Amino acid sequence: MSLPDEMEVVEIAGSGGPEVLTPARRPVPHPGAGEVLIRVAWAGVNRPDALQRAGMYAPPPGASDLPGLECAGEVVAVGEGASWRVGDMVCALLPGGGYAEYVVTPGAHCLSVPKGMCLQQAAALPETYFTVWTNVFDRGGLQAGEVFLVHGGSSGIGTTAIQLAREWGARVFTTAGSDEKCAECERLGAERAINYKTEDFGAILKDVGGADLVLDMVGGRYIPENVKLLKEDGRLVMIAFLGGPKAELNFAQVMVKRLTITGSTLRPQSDAAKADIAKSLKTNVWPLMEVGKVGPIMDQSFPLPEAAKAHARMESSAHIGKITLKVAGG
Amino acid sequence: MSLPDEMEVVEIAGSGGPEVLTPARRPVPHPGAGEVLIRVAWAGVNRPDALQRAGMYAPPPGASDLPGLECAGEVVAVGEGASWRVGDMVCALLPGGGYAEYVVTPGAHCLSVPKGMCLQQAAALPETYFTVWTNVFDRGGLQAGEVFLVHGGSSGIGTTAIQLAREWGARVFTTAGSDEKCAECERLGAERAINYKTEDFGAILKDVGGADLVLDMVGGRYIPENVKLLKEDGRLVMIAFLGGPKAELNFAQVMVKRLTITGSTLRPQSDAAKADIAKSLKTNVWPLMEVGKVGPIMDQSFPLPEAAKAHARMESSAHIGKITLKVAGG
Repeated sequence: MSLPDEMEVVEIAGSGGPEVLTPARRPVPHPGAGEVLIRVAWAGVNRPDALQRAGMYAPPPGASDLPGLECAGEVVAVGEGASWRVGDMVCALLPGGGYAEYVVTPGAHCLSVPKGMCLQQAAALPETYFTVWTNVFDRGGLQAGEVFLVHGGSSGIGTTAIQLAREWGARVFTTAGSDEKCAECERLGAERAINYKTEDFGAILKDVGGADLVLDMVGGRYIPENVKLLKEDGRLVMIAFLGGPKAELNFAQVMVKRLTITGSTLRPQSDAAKADIAKSLKTNVWPLMEVGKVGPIMDQSFPLPEAAKAHARMESSAHIGKITLKVAGG
Repeated sequence: MSLPDEMEVVEIAGSGGPEVLTPARRPVPHPGAGEVLIRVAWAGVNRPDALQRAGMYAPPPGASDLPGLECAGEVVAVGEGASWRVGDMVCALLPGGGYAEYVVTPGAHCLSVPKGMCLQQAAALPETYFTVWTNVFDRGGLQAGEVFLVHGGSSGIGTTAIQLAREWGARVFTTAGSDEKCAECERLGAERAINYKTEDFGAILKDVGGADLVLDMVGGRYIPENVKLLKEDGRLVMIAFLGGPKAELNFAQVMVKRLTITGSTLRPQSDAAKADIAKSLKTNVWPLMEVGKVGPIMDQSFPLPEAAKAHARMESSAHIGKITLKVAGG
């Protein structure tokens, strides 16, 4: 099979609002040792793409400067030692470069498209499932029967966290910004979705005795609220700061309740760490996916050249679930 | 052997400065199921005793209202199911009540007096060794080769943490308030003791690439400094707040460096949790103690009725290592 020399991409021309996302042409990349080249059918859109576009989140050394951290498509070339074959259909976590017709990524960061799932859905999986797995289960240590609070319940991260925590037997509480979003969160398995515009999540969690684990992407004034509502031996895991990263805290609560405050970002982690998460997902989550117990919640999709519209929608927070870009006939 | 009905104790008459510590007489307690009665030879003096005396740290439900969290002495009566015999010489973590001629405590919170160690030294072990073990190794996960910073290096906690971390193969850094205290910390195995009155510990740790683990009992303005000097995947464990518990923090550092901020206090933990720590100490630390590789650093001692003088010395911070009270002919 012959590959073209050039491909269509969307690049970040300067930095700023969605309008800096600009269609362009680039050379098709070549897979190095351990890597695969994927012909992208669909690409997922994520918050870090918008931070990178705004100039606030530089790609790690060696990564493509193109945005895009996940995709689904067909393996069309395989580097030495990568354990996939040309023709395999995969979804993949990417170091960057997903807003393009072709992308390279380590083979160990790819997973098979789950049986029964279309490529559009598969493209919406990697970034949120890798993030939720490593933060809620590895880092946060969620156990059956525990009380779990996830903020931003209607986001890609939120809809994934609700489903996985429910499958693991946790009691799930969540916050969202409208009654419509709250209804969707409860449909997905939240025991109680809290409209943060009209209700006090701290008081509601206190009423059930507090939370064992909080997954937060808001920060700001939520940080002291989260710490206050945690039970003894509770954990707070922070994965973004849409409300700002600074807060004053009385750390005596951390000591007296033996809390753990931690967090992570996915992109700068080592290839080995990401490969470990992929293995855990394959063992623990893909079987649930293939019987339809968990799956992506899909918002709107846009053609690749209209990536700016996708970012504008994400930044309006009108969406529920994942926004995707259609790249090739998927 | 017949036991007296009454005993000499030091009680907290009201709350306030060292002068509220007052000699008194109380009934000798009786051991319940799983408990032992110890004739106290020596009792250790600790910071939480002073907080309790000042009215800032109430004893947990069911505990003696007398101060004193550790002692060494002879087992003189054994409750049903406790695995000690009358005549055994033990050192013990206490729920309270150590400033007395007799005290009861769960048998599972006692350890044999290490071979070659006198009762005065043994009385100085439990509170700091239980605290350091659970916070530095269980909670903080210190590994060989890691960079470890412990504040208050010349305190009972500090001198214990320096020795154990050195034995575990960590690179130990510490802070103390005089050149004399710093010299003692380096003699105990610190690679570098930092006089916090004349030197900048943050800058010195940055020069060696940062710390993997910080054990802090200062808090206040140290909290943001600690977070700043931690490496990726670093841990901050907080066990007291001599400088106050409040701080403003940029939590983006926690996320980007994948830090863990945690802490604990020993006294409110369950009997089972304390028994687990005792088992770990018996296996991991008592053998080192019995060959003289680690041991208590002794400051001054005072007769039990002069407990007020012991507290005044501790609160002056003039001491290096542990202050003890002589209760009976030990």
